[in-house]
Amino acid sequence: MPDSTSRLRLVVLGSAAGGGFPQWNCRCPVCTLAWEGDPRVRRRTQTSVAVSADGERWALVNCAPEILSQIQAVPALHPKGGRRHTPVASVLLTNADIDHVAGLLSLREAQGFRLFATPAVQAVLRANSAFDVLAETVVTRHEVTLGSSFELVDGVSAEIFPVPGKIALYLEKGDVETRVEGEQTIGVELRAGDARIVFVPGCAAMTDALRQRLEGADAVLFDGTVWRDDEMIASGVGTKTGARMGHMAMSGAAGSIAAFDGIAVGRKVYVHINNTNPVLIDGSPERSAAEAAGWDIAEDGMEIRL
Amino acid sequence: MPDSTSRLRLVVLGSAAGGGFPQWNCRCPVCTLAWEGDPRVRRRTQTSVAVSADGERWALVNCAPEILSQIQAVPALHPKGGRRHTPVASVLLTNADIDHVAGLLSLREAQGFRLFATPAVQAVLRANSAFDVLAETVVTRHEVTLGSSFELVDGVSAEIFPVPGKIALYLEKGDVETRVEGEQTIGVELRAGDARIVFVPGCAAMTDALRQRLEGADAVLFDGTVWRDDEMIASGVGTKTGARMGHMAMSGAAGSIAAFDGIAVGRKVYVHINNTNPVLIDGSPERSAAEAAGWDIAEDGMEIRL
Repeated sequence: MPDSTSRLRLVVLGSAAGGGFPQWNCRCPVCTLAWEGDPRVRRRTQTSVAVSADGERWALVNCAPEILSQIQAVPALHPKGGRRHTPVASVLLTNADIDHVAGLLSLREAQGFRLFATPAVQAVLRANSAFDVLAETVVTRHEVTLGSSFELVDGVSAEIFPVPGKIALYLEKGDVETRVEGEQTIGVELRAGDARIVFVPGCAAMTDALRQRLEGADAVLFDGTVWRDDEMIASGVGTKTGARMGHMAMSGAAGSIAAFDGIAVGRKVYVHINNTNPVLIDGSPERSAAEAAGWDIAEDGMEIRL
Repeated sequence: MPDSTSRLRLVVLGSAAGGGFPQWNCRCPVCTLAWEGDPRVRRRTQTSVAVSADGERWALVNCAPEILSQIQAVPALHPKGGRRHTPVASVLLTNADIDHVAGLLSLREAQGFRLFATPAVQAVLRANSAFDVLAETVVTRHEVTLGSSFELVDGVSAEIFPVPGKIALYLEKGDVETRVEGEQTIGVELRAGDARIVFVPGCAAMTDALRQRLEGADAVLFDGTVWRDDEMIASGVGTKTGARMGHMAMSGAAGSIAAFDGIAVGRKVYVHINNTNPVLIDGSPERSAAEAAGWDIAEDGMEIRL
């Protein structure tokens, strides 16, 4: 039965950055809480969202490695009729990062859906024969271009737009430009009627164009990878800054909390949260600071209804 | 602390065939029970196992798409010390099926381990750049050959051997030979001291060589994909027989229950169980028949200690 109580629904299937939380090989201070079962933290799978206008047909935006358990956790996405069925009618990829595309390998079993991505991302999929498990007879691949609007799923239109970022880690060769604006890293604007959600799981910097895009949105889901730019280093688990990974920090003068100051947005939600980020801890000073600035910290299963 | 109470431990991380149970897009009679929460069935992830001699350093045999949740579910596989650590010291692939290799994409984060596979499977990984997330500076790739023994992980030796089967579905071109004996489908013999486990997650037919290999094993984990050869067709979810998929059925004159008759094995366990297989239902006639023939039906988390 169509859902007549909302215009646009979005379910956060997964809310963690690459690796998930806790990360399989990590004992940073935040992961250690999770391994020890501390009730102040909750496990999170890698970031994917599902959107729908009617509650019956859904689109996935990105497809995390954990997509099968993510689908199992959300009754709206369970098969509903006949022997083979899925409410998942389409999938849109924001880039070719492993945590955004690996789940496609699990969406097989001769099930049809529409697969939207930029030409560059489609080329990566074609170059990796493993993705041929998505039989071309049932999964149709559609190239979408920056700045043009298309119907993502019944009643929901999408427009992809570039944000500062970098290419996927496994495609890096030599020096890496981390604030390129092109097909490498994109945001997605989702509309149903007059409801509008902007989803930006990775972003290296705020720009005037992005600020204008965000202005007036009913909800924004934004890159919440790290709290501090040097967080991976300070946690003793890596040598890269957030900036090197193509992610702006939450805090600091160049951070996203400051960057959103003065932008009118109905609801601000951090997604794609790295396992090192102390906002994952209930009651931490960083969580409190983010919340005081008007931000929610996404959890798996969080739903936004407009 | 080393585990001195057993010579060889094996944990079934996942026990389902490709797609898992319930399968994301399936409402066959058995999946429907799972979607409806019937207590006679339990969810299962796709087949991987972990083995260890000392309980400290482990090898994975196959790496399912759900590997992250599988690791989270087994405390022995959690990181133990330092900022970055894993007890997973090596991974062995039995073929290039998606449900056996996709989890490799999640074993990244600059974590080192040894990756064992046949030359044919290593070539498939090299041809798919997505697997370059396993940085060659930390993950060493080792080609292993049929019939030769090697140290898989501290104190555990492994020998791979061919069983009748076929190449991975996404590599099929034109007519497919389903009972080839070569690198495409292999079994693994695991030894620690005088303890011996044989793991055969896919097998199209019993042969004299296989029968000799199985004779006297302390435990065998064997292909439990389908109960009946025409099960997918009878369930209304497919057109392929078990034989066409490279799997012998459990039941029938040519089935594995009959084929094991007269082979002396300490413990017989079915793994790689398809979502359509009625042995997944507690108390079903098929479950009872398998158990009466001396077979256990693996569940995720099952452990064998020898």
